[in-house]
Amino acid sequence: MIESKRQKLDEEERKITVIAHPNIALIKYWGKASEAEMIPLNDSISLAVNYFHAKTTLIARKVEKGEEIGDTVSINGKDVGLNSRFHRVFKSVRDKLDCQWSFTVSSSTNFPVAAGLASSAAGFAAIAFALGKTFDLPEHDIVRLARYGSGSASRSVLSGLVQWKKGNDKTESHVVSHFSADHWPELRLVIIVVKDEEKALSSKEGMERTAKTSELLQDRIRRNQERINLIISAFSSHDFPSLAELIMRDSNEMHAVCLDSYPPIQYLNATSWSIINFVHSFNKESVRAAYTFDAGPNACIFTLKEHVNELYDRVTSTFSKGKEVKDVYISELGQGPQIDN
Amino acid sequence: MIESKRQKLDEEERKITVIAHPNIALIKYWGKASEAEMIPLNDSISLAVNYFHAKTTLIARKVEKGEEIGDTVSINGKDVGLNSRFHRVFKSVRDKLDCQWSFTVSSSTNFPVAAGLASSAAGFAAIAFALGKTFDLPEHDIVRLARYGSGSASRSVLSGLVQWKKGNDKTESHVVSHFSADHWPELRLVIIVVKDEEKALSSKEGMERTAKTSELLQDRIRRNQERINLIISAFSSHDFPSLAELIMRDSNEMHAVCLDSYPPIQYLNATSWSIINFVHSFNKESVRAAYTFDAGPNACIFTLKEHVNELYDRVTSTFSKGKEVKDVYISELGQGPQIDN
Repeated sequence: MIESKRQKLDEEERKITVIAHPNIALIKYWGKASEAEMIPLNDSISLAVNYFHAKTTLIARKVEKGEEIGDTVSINGKDVGLNSRFHRVFKSVRDKLDCQWSFTVSSSTNFPVAAGLASSAAGFAAIAFALGKTFDLPEHDIVRLARYGSGSASRSVLSGLVQWKKGNDKTESHVVSHFSADHWPELRLVIIVVKDEEKALSSKEGMERTAKTSELLQDRIRRNQERINLIISAFSSHDFPSLAELIMRDSNEMHAVCLDSYPPIQYLNATSWSIINFVHSFNKESVRAAYTFDAGPNACIFTLKEHVNELYDRVTSTFSKGKEVKDVYISELGQGPQIDN
Repeated sequence: MIESKRQKLDEEERKITVIAHPNIALIKYWGKASEAEMIPLNDSISLAVNYFHAKTTLIARKVEKGEEIGDTVSINGKDVGLNSRFHRVFKSVRDKLDCQWSFTVSSSTNFPVAAGLASSAAGFAAIAFALGKTFDLPEHDIVRLARYGSGSASRSVLSGLVQWKKGNDKTESHVVSHFSADHWPELRLVIIVVKDEEKALSSKEGMERTAKTSELLQDRIRRNQERINLIISAFSSHDFPSLAELIMRDSNEMHAVCLDSYPPIQYLNATSWSIINFVHSFNKESVRAAYTFDAGPNACIFTLKEHVNELYDRVTSTFSKGKEVKDVYISELGQGPQIDN
């Protein structure tokens, strides 16, 4: 094994293309215990959005001693400045290798980036997975690299129902998949991209403010393990009504601690609230849908295959495209990253 | 004393006119321990809005045995149906008296009713105060009668900084004034009545849902006494920045537990959020204003005499009347009910 790794490391240039999906948390990650190590304050648990993906090509080139390392990243054809997250990921992988490498990353997505649709989760999961496959890194390192890019990206490294266990330091913080995607293949997601003119606070800044100022956050953290266990149990027994209520309550609670921050943080806008009320009315007879909102106004609505067409039709007839809503997508759930041949 | 009371009770008809003010809570009342006895889940503390008042005339008529009791209430010239709150107040006072009386109440207000401006607090405080003065009831009974009409009305029976101590039963639940209104006469309130087309959930229903479903509410209740003490201490030392932060945080927290209810409750609309952001920007250099929101989108902004004109001007130039905002008022704070001669 060591022989073959050495051999690989001797190659001058390596190229790989991978596909990774964003994920939607059923129990949200909100607040960090450590920014440097990207350790969260609570466990989170998610499912991948199969329909959306980042397709990422990584070219790794060996760098001679004294030669400058020139990493580059482009997203959808546009060069992006390398912020500290990219530096942290690339530095971390270089620290593990015997000699210096530079990285060229070009990524394209089939969904809008910077629209609050977890594009950075898909993007960093793809980069971490590509680096891992290129240098034969163990899963634990791939997950850590993804996390260094974006906390929630670590959940996109696995498939199925994925829990990010916070752990107490960088070696403990890890992800685990409780069920593969085919445990509950009927699950579907209807994603509503909300038209939004307001500039939202970034997740990073929002989390920092909440962690520093919200007193209710402590109560949320105390309940975290119980909620995670309830999600796993509802998922295990295909109990959609229980799963749905847990998902909606967690989303509400996350936005409640945002509102309890000082100054208060608002991610839900009037359309988000209309969607919340719409889902509760859709559920009037029986619970068939569950909304969840990340750090923005867009809604992800979980449902089952048998209800997805009715839900989609009622969403698109209730919310006029172009006015309140930009786009509505349907997706299956749960796939992990793959190498694209 | 008993003689004089007896004498009074022998009169056939009595008439009194009183003026009472609504109050704005700095620490909100949200959630009941007992609906029947109107016992709250937490203490609250408030100041009266002097500029607004309910002017209420009570006519009490002795009823002969066998004669039907015909209570009536009119508000701003319109007869209102006697709901269970009026019945509870009138029954409670009749139970204390030696013979039967019927009550005719006519109330007028100088501010919009049913606009979320605590009109019921002013109205029931006026009725309770009028009944108390008519029948020489002790303060404790007046407070209880007001509370039976509307929980927060009990705070309008006293003046200055008034705390409603929840107590554990109807005899323990009481109000106390920590400071008279002249302890801090520079305090002012700018009240923004927000244009609102949405029908809000009543406070009663909202409180019930929060008490039944919000898990974060328990955390809010745990912190209640500490917050009340901090308010009293900031008020005592005329520490406006501390008072302001406590007021804003409590408002945020109340709306956070509303959002944490299931289904979630929204009282703040887009204009409310614009006002929140406006106040934080007004406070950029130094904390000179504090917003608070009850169960509706209207904002009450506390400030000091020296800043009130600038605040008013900036509010009225930022929020266009007729578009986002209906009316903006300025008031002094702290007066209790008076008999109108």
